[in-house]
Amino acid sequence: MTKKVLVLPGDGIGPEIVGQATRVLDALIENHGLDVTYESALVGGSSFDAHETPLTDEVLAQAKEADAILLGAVGGPKWEQYDISVRPEKALLKLRSELELFGNLRPAILYKQLADASSLKPELVADLDVLIVRELTGGIYFGQPRGIRTLENGERQGFNTYVYSESEVERIAHVAFKAAMLRDKRVCSVDKANVLEATELWREVMDRVSKEYPEVELTHMYVDNAAMQLVRAPKQFDVMVTGNMFGDILSDCAAMLTGSIGMLPSASLDANGKGMYEPIHGSAPDIAGQNKANPLATILSVSMMLRHSFGEGAMADKIDQAVSTVLDQGYRTGDIHTEGDKLVSTVEMGDAVLKAL
Amino acid sequence: MTKKVLVLPGDGIGPEIVGQATRVLDALIENHGLDVTYESALVGGSSFDAHETPLTDEVLAQAKEADAILLGAVGGPKWEQYDISVRPEKALLKLRSELELFGNLRPAILYKQLADASSLKPELVADLDVLIVRELTGGIYFGQPRGIRTLENGERQGFNTYVYSESEVERIAHVAFKAAMLRDKRVCSVDKANVLEATELWREVMDRVSKEYPEVELTHMYVDNAAMQLVRAPKQFDVMVTGNMFGDILSDCAAMLTGSIGMLPSASLDANGKGMYEPIHGSAPDIAGQNKANPLATILSVSMMLRHSFGEGAMADKIDQAVSTVLDQGYRTGDIHTEGDKLVSTVEMGDAVLKAL
Ligand SMILES: CC(C)[C@H](C(=O)O)[C@@H](O)C(=O)O
Ligand SMILES: CC(C)[C@H](C(=O)O)[C@@H](O)C(=O)O
Repeated sequence: MTKKVLVLPGDGIGPEIVGQATRVLDALIENHGLDVTYESALVGGSSFDAHETPLTDEVLAQAKEADAILLGAVGGPKWEQYDISVRPEKALLKLRSELELFGNLRPAILYKQLADASSLKPELVADLDVLIVRELTGGIYFGQPRGIRTLENGERQGFNTYVYSESEVERIAHVAFKAAMLRDKRVCSVDKANVLEATELWREVMDRVSKEYPEVELTHMYVDNAAMQLVRAPKQFDVMVTGNMFGDILSDCAAMLTGSIGMLPSASLDANGKGMYEPIHGSAPDIAGQNKANPLATILSVSMMLRHSFGEGAMADKIDQAVSTVLDQGYRTGDIHTEGDKLVSTVEMGDAVLKAL
Repeated sequence: MTKKVLVLPGDGIGPEIVGQATRVLDALIENHGLDVTYESALVGGSSFDAHETPLTDEVLAQAKEADAILLGAVGGPKWEQYDISVRPEKALLKLRSELELFGNLRPAILYKQLADASSLKPELVADLDVLIVRELTGGIYFGQPRGIRTLENGERQGFNTYVYSESEVERIAHVAFKAAMLRDKRVCSVDKANVLEATELWREVMDRVSKEYPEVELTHMYVDNAAMQLVRAPKQFDVMVTGNMFGDILSDCAAMLTGSIGMLPSASLDANGKGMYEPIHGSAPDIAGQNKANPLATILSVSMMLRHSFGEGAMADKIDQAVSTVLDQGYRTGDIHTEGDKLVSTVEMGDAVLKAL
């Protein structure tokens, strides 16, 4: 049956990078028999400008109906003046929550062709390949009660709730262990179990679920130490699994270790393999509309979509291979460009990938 | 009036490193007219072994009476089997909370003599000097309600509360702005105001307090981006101020950027300048009792004590200078040793500092 993809370009550089990713989709549909159709819709600030909400009910319904979603990026200074409830980010959070996309996969991979881009010494990051598995629909991001209240003494107090139930931890544990089975079979679960009761339970459930994966080695690490170890010796990790808030911080830290966040895709999956796919970088308003942005993270997001939602591993490999080829050929957008490489535009990078496909 | 210091060596390498720091104190008392007396007591695992609690009421009372506290380190695998309520860490948390030590100063400084120790490329960290100001008695560390409960469907749920009142944010804001006035006059406040209401209020209060410090430039950054920027270009920061949980993560990340956490002291201050001083590193049970640990972070904690609690800036400068001198002379404990330096023991490093004083 034909699979349906909802394409949500979003704000800033979103439309440009997604434009190159859909060219890749088109090529696979036309020349490689990929059985997919797609339609586009507004999300984030561009939806707010048109409809006064970052995510209309109609687009949410389209997202629910789709088999997968390809997202560009949302947000920008233009919308920072508005209330948190209508900001572009809210669309992301609502899509994650309403679609129950609890399993967020964020690979931090350093391409050997880009080894110099890292701020770390080359020997510490060469061939870095860490997978961060972040719980995406629970924890303090969605916990109730939350808000700002006025105390008896008249001063205000802001509060949020960090909460995880056993079943929420179980399902993300399975995602991590299953991912590890396809890799180096090591999972490091990150918590703050020496201070937070919510993460004491997290640790206990991780231990329990790990019994179902006897081949996988499970270790635990406190989040402060995990941040240190990522900086000190990131290659010690295979899969890291953690909650929503810690995952937000650690996955960005890990991504930046590669020095090339314009290269990193991500997947957010539900229990049935439906997913939303997006680059981990932001909407980069400063270079929006200038045909300068790196489309590779978005193109690689299409690869993750084929692999995780459509079971098209071979076609995903083709995309990964094409990206590797263009890097070998020396093509670089501004963000990853160094002396001696071929500086190309967003569209030219798309051209190069299509040619390599 | 003679100042009273409570010395809490703690566990693991704690007694060894504190032993060298008190030799420095002794020297200042005997030869430089420092008017201080000190007594020692048990804390952490060693207190638990003797009294079945990581912090006795008696020691807590001594701590309240003292003008300053010098702490080594607490914890170790030996005590990880026990309940969170009696673990060594609990002593730390209780001291912070009972003494209202809300202002945690964690400098991340890269000594030019140790430039190679960093995992980052030298040019990105040379002369790094960032001060992390972490709120230490509030936020999710101490918020109520907290615990593990059983839901109606029978599954358990762990929960914690992230909470900050305006007055808590105000007082830590003042600590950060005052610190910035003595430095490069730039404060970056770190929050997650696009998701957490508690940090929306945090941001608002930071803006308000900043008006009292017109010379200081205040910027705001989301915590995920802050983790990225620390890895990408740490020298962009002067003072960073943030809540308890984010501060735990970011200060360890920043410390590790220097590659030499054996060099970094910290101060935890109350509203009147009373403080607890300790190295940021842990109790390193693997090398405990071997005369191998680096005592310099603890010695530099004495320097911070003199500066912040006793108004003895000149004497603090002397210690800092002595530490710099021993580094110049090439003395290195194992943690900071590289080919060609003089490898020394804990006690020999203490000897060298005393000689340089
Ligand atoms: C935009 C923001 C709400 C989001 C998050 O915090 O999850 C982003 O930082 C991310 O990691 O996808
Ligand atoms: C030991 C632990 C409770 C403590 C904390 O989380 O505050 C430590 O990591 C620190 O940063 O001082």
